[in-house]
Amino acid sequence: MAEGLNVAVVGATGAVGNMMIKVLEERSFPVSSIKLLASKRSAGKKLSFRGKAVDVQELTEDSFDGMDLALFSAGASVSRKFAPIAASRGCVVVDNSSAFRMDPNVPLVVPEVNPKALKNHKNIIANPNCSTIQMVVALKPLHDRVGIKRIVVTTFQAVSGTGQKAIVELEEQVKAWFQGKPIEKKVYPHQILFNCLPHIGSFLDNGFTEEEMKMLNETRKIFDDPSIEVCATTVRVPVFYGHSESVNVELKGPLSVEEVRELLESAEGVRMVDNPSAAQYPLPIDAAGSDLTFVGRIRKDPSVENGIVMWIVADNIRKGAATNAVQIAEILLRENLLKK
Amino acid sequence: MAEGLNVAVVGATGAVGNMMIKVLEERSFPVSSIKLLASKRSAGKKLSFRGKAVDVQELTEDSFDGMDLALFSAGASVSRKFAPIAASRGCVVVDNSSAFRMDPNVPLVVPEVNPKALKNHKNIIANPNCSTIQMVVALKPLHDRVGIKRIVVTTFQAVSGTGQKAIVELEEQVKAWFQGKPIEKKVYPHQILFNCLPHIGSFLDNGFTEEEMKMLNETRKIFDDPSIEVCATTVRVPVFYGHSESVNVELKGPLSVEEVRELLESAEGVRMVDNPSAAQYPLPIDAAGSDLTFVGRIRKDPSVENGIVMWIVADNIRKGAATNAVQIAEILLRENLLKK
Repeated sequence: MAEGLNVAVVGATGAVGNMMIKVLEERSFPVSSIKLLASKRSAGKKLSFRGKAVDVQELTEDSFDGMDLALFSAGASVSRKFAPIAASRGCVVVDNSSAFRMDPNVPLVVPEVNPKALKNHKNIIANPNCSTIQMVVALKPLHDRVGIKRIVVTTFQAVSGTGQKAIVELEEQVKAWFQGKPIEKKVYPHQILFNCLPHIGSFLDNGFTEEEMKMLNETRKIFDDPSIEVCATTVRVPVFYGHSESVNVELKGPLSVEEVRELLESAEGVRMVDNPSAAQYPLPIDAAGSDLTFVGRIRKDPSVENGIVMWIVADNIRKGAATNAVQIAEILLRENLLKK
Repeated sequence: MAEGLNVAVVGATGAVGNMMIKVLEERSFPVSSIKLLASKRSAGKKLSFRGKAVDVQELTEDSFDGMDLALFSAGASVSRKFAPIAASRGCVVVDNSSAFRMDPNVPLVVPEVNPKALKNHKNIIANPNCSTIQMVVALKPLHDRVGIKRIVVTTFQAVSGTGQKAIVELEEQVKAWFQGKPIEKKVYPHQILFNCLPHIGSFLDNGFTEEEMKMLNETRKIFDDPSIEVCATTVRVPVFYGHSESVNVELKGPLSVEEVRELLESAEGVRMVDNPSAAQYPLPIDAAGSDLTFVGRIRKDPSVENGIVMWIVADNIRKGAATNAVQIAEILLRENLLKK
């Protein structure tokens, strides 16, 4: 173990997979060997890790032989097929897809919130949805202090959450608009440039989207509290990196704005940016590139008992995905939870 | 009166003033003469009305002599000074600024919601804030049926709401980004391109912005119901035209989603766009250019008793400002409420 782990990144050529490689480097995660896996289509590409070119290999059932840790971010169907294979061969999987998040046998972990849930893992650990992660990081100290009754949240989500192809789509739409050409759309059903789409994930029978229901179900599981109510409206906006959230939270007891500020100032993984008179509040373009969750616009919600309003922003590819996964791996390592 | 009215437009060169001229034309408002007024700086410019060039004149105390109707959109300080002068000379003012909105002697009117409030006007009528107008148009039928207890709203507001200079700022930022040049900001304290700014209007001591408090105070006045609670978070987004709103409303009694749909289908000024499985929901780029308020994403809010969630979009320069003002003038004319 002293020399480090044999680490696989599944979906290495995607926006999150790429960032996983970068975050492993940045945080000096002890990697003795790295295996970059992707679909057949991407096999043969070269990516860089610690200054060396690494070949991308095709993901197969044998990919995980000898691997200690695999970070998955290649979509739910790939995870559903390959994560159990990796797990059965003794490789611990941190899976960024939605495939196992609600599986009662799989811990769903945000390191600042519920690291203890890792103790009982069975070689698969789920990384929550990006929108959920930043919200629970910011709300954790309030929940610990007085308990959360209900959350009403509206999101402003960056195109990078959809993946590399959506980043390209927004860039191409800017280009077409600038050149006076017709704006083409392939990834989203509508133009995203200069627009807001209240549509993330498929629509369910209750009128909510999958993304909106994730914010309810995952929040309950992470806080281990099925009584918490969450009503979400999730919206895609023309931003490249950084999800923003407008959050109205009803607490189970009173907390003053000053008390909320004090709690957030010492909260793990949180940076308070809350000096509105100087036009200082969290912004997606500022959060991009950071591993922190930024909180501001904190105020009392006078429309309800024990109400607090806040504005929560984080880099959806980093804290919302890659960084959270690597942080999980760091705890597994530190707490001797890798079955080696 | 048969030949029409002598109409003044104050702030004629601004985004809303310009649209007021266009809407007067489009709706064939009976204008016998038009006077276009602006600051000294803009005097001498020419604007078109019904195919003829009209000189922009400098606004002075004598500008309203002989005028029947004045549509103001030149900011609160201009309204505070000149609207009472116009009113004292028998010219009825429809004022788009915030100057008189909360004045108990001034009706605050959305034609689909509270046209009767016009009856007692004293020559000044206030046009509500853009964000408030579209929200109350959509909520009016629900309020009439069962009553509204509390509204939690988060807005996605277009730059045109700030005025012509903000439209230019977003265009210039696109240009700079595309050409790889530094992005300059003059109108907003931060880059608006690819960003979301939770900051519209000045910040008040309670942590809310002026815009957020307008949504509370104006909603109460328009519905003539000081018991309604409204908690707003208002956010500027990189969209040119069209404000979007994520609205969670708690009603005083039960209404099914089907009942809400039925009410909205026959509501004045509303178009329901609510077929999510076909990716049909209101979008700012679709609402731009329309005088209607678009409502969709209607669903039950299971997190609270009698909760309904919806997504409300309208063209902030038209229904949110110019069209609403002209519609007020149409009622004044029809109901013989012009003191001629």
